Amino acid sequence: MNEDTFQRFSAADLRTFIDNTFKAFEVPQADAAQAADVLVTSDLRGIDSHGVARLRKYVELMSEGLINPRPNVRILRERMSTATVDGDNGLGLVVGPKANQIAIEKAEKVGSGWVSVCNTNHFGIAGYYPLQALQKDIIGWAMTNTGKWMAPIFGAERMLGTNPIAIAFPGLKEPPVVIDFATSAVSFGKVQIKRREGKDLPDNWILDPDGNPSNKVDDLLTGGTLLPLGSTRETGGHKGYCMAAMVDILTAVLSGANWGPFAPPFASRVFIPEKSVGKGIGHFFGAMSIDGFMDVDEFKTRIDEWVQRFRETKAAPDTQGVLIPGDPERFAEAERKESGIPIIRPVIEDLKWVAEKAKIDWIQ
Amino acid sequence: MNEDTFQRFSAADLRTFIDNTFKAFEVPQADAAQAADVLVTSDLRGIDSHGVARLRKYVELMSEGLINPRPNVRILRERMSTATVDGDNGLGLVVGPKANQIAIEKAEKVGSGWVSVCNTNHFGIAGYYPLQALQKDIIGWAMTNTGKWMAPIFGAERMLGTNPIAIAFPGLKEPPVVIDFATSAVSFGKVQIKRREGKDLPDNWILDPDGNPSNKVDDLLTGGTLLPLGSTRETGGHKGYCMAAMVDILTAVLSGANWGPFAPPFASRVFIPEKSVGKGIGHFFGAMSIDGFMDVDEFKTRIDEWVQRFRETKAAPDTQGVLIPGDPERFAEAERKESGIPIIRPVIEDLKWVAEKAKIDWIQ
Repeated sequence: MNEDTFQRFSAADLRTFIDNTFKAFEVPQADAAQAADVLVTSDLRGIDSHGVARLRKYVELMSEGLINPRPNVRILRERMSTATVDGDNGLGLVVGPKANQIAIEKAEKVGSGWVSVCNTNHFGIAGYYPLQALQKDIIGWAMTNTGKWMAPIFGAERMLGTNPIAIAFPGLKEPPVVIDFATSAVSFGKVQIKRREGKDLPDNWILDPDGNPSNKVDDLLTGGTLLPLGSTRETGGHKGYCMAAMVDILTAVLSGANWGPFAPPFASRVFIPEKSVGKGIGHFFGAMSIDGFMDVDEFKTRIDEWVQRFRETKAAPDTQGVLIPGDPERFAEAERKESGIPIIRPVIEDLKWVAEKAKIDWIQ
Repeated sequence: MNEDTFQRFSAADLRTFIDNTFKAFEVPQADAAQAADVLVTSDLRGIDSHGVARLRKYVELMSEGLINPRPNVRILRERMSTATVDGDNGLGLVVGPKANQIAIEKAEKVGSGWVSVCNTNHFGIAGYYPLQALQKDIIGWAMTNTGKWMAPIFGAERMLGTNPIAIAFPGLKEPPVVIDFATSAVSFGKVQIKRREGKDLPDNWILDPDGNPSNKVDDLLTGGTLLPLGSTRETGGHKGYCMAAMVDILTAVLSGANWGPFAPPFASRVFIPEKSVGKGIGHFFGAMSIDGFMDVDEFKTRIDEWVQRFRETKAAPDTQGVLIPGDPERFAEAERKESGIPIIRPVIEDLKWVAEKAKIDWIQ
């Protein structure tokens, strides 16, 4: 990015702006602050596609009455270490943290907590949730299903979302190991970047609408599909399909949400699913108290040793060597806390549109 | 395979042979039967690399006193829904089922159970364990770390095993969805098949000892590495690395076992790890009672609908269309229960060696 194409904003300014936006749409104060925290954390960690860049879409959905600003998030069914939660069609940015909190509380009581959530909406970055759990020495998991983009291996039809998985482990002196990835070979965001640059796509990212390999962004946009992680049968694409299926079942089949091709899209006008098989999309949260397995400091010390040994891995040619999961996001966060968060012009235009729509001040 | 290269055996005959073998090495009767069940299930399900073909290696390890035939499998630490188990250096085929049973019992009591296991050995196919949980309407998970073969992305050194993950979900009228895969792009078994056929390897399977892409089996055997699922940075290889790391941490760091490059190899003479950072290898089992989330029959009916819709996916050209996870193994099992299990000549020779070593009869 060169300086002409973006402008930097402080996390504090963005947080206030997002907070005010949600409050303008009748989201209660605490929930608005929570939602702002999820989005700003994404921007700080360098995951630009899931942060403030999405605020306009949330606002569109709220303006159209498609999201409930004041949900009654409630437990439908539970046992000591499990629960199913109905998000009452609230913002995923609000429902997600509440359901995650239920998992954490169960972990504190009985060692672990597992919560499947229906009737919810997109919850931001999956990595946000295990980061919350880390603060209590809990290993946190998060998954969500999303609107369809991916074909199962041997398929030529959008059947699954990019269904991410996140999990994190705390170190003692070393930073935590934070894993957060989509189960497709690449996210839609990466395709958008190539499109903006006017470039063809690398091999093994997408299929055209007939199910043939393609390098053309247009083939994806006119009905093609993202490939699962592993891409082809020969290089393990069936494994990425299995993982996306696992996430779909734990988040949506198990909770009573819409699964697979019936998951509603993030932007309401992309497509309308052919039918409904449940309520909203689904999330799944897990929380495991470390002290249910091992002395907490002993575990953290072992993670430190793991991190140190992996950093010492012999590097492949023409690379900077092995990273620890979570390193790229941590580096981004350090830099952005210092220098501000770069926002590209089209997103700034979207945010000014939001300010007008919400009748709030734009950042001075 | 043509008829000259293999011979078929009934599951019952193989089971008796394996059972007698383990008993000859002082494994108690119930444990020997359990171990035989894990191996025969693998062969029945078509996963030839993990079944009776491994019996010779188990026998070698037992002959050398490297595995304890009569382990005292015990809980080191627990909370209501979690535990850490010490396998007392027993067969993974015995320790695994016992630890899995502890997870299942916790799920019956409080909704879920999560068990991390140290001081154990290779446990057969990961898919065996969730199949046990299914019998009680429990969603089961299993993972294990294994001896090093895989390089992290940007690495040129063996740091992780092929660390598999398995999970299964029951249907009502449809067969269960059974997910079981290694987190490398391909298993070592697939490389061995190409080697036997005298063929080069496809792109994106391995690196040579210097960390360069290679298609030569010899490059793998002389110090090269398997690539993680996703293979390259461009097609998501960092995600396969993250998954293998997750399995390594949950199974080995959390339990007190040897993690990463320190995990002992399956065959004792392949390599000796540079140091020990714990006891044996590690497993991780999870069990979640469906009724902790949803009415059991409602869930199973939803799985049936999921399976039916995914079977109807528009097929990609030159494919037979989309399979449900677990289909290939189920088809193999139906065929092999009927026609017997095909065992290739080199494995038959190994089994005859085992018969002699154990002083038991070979199958008539």
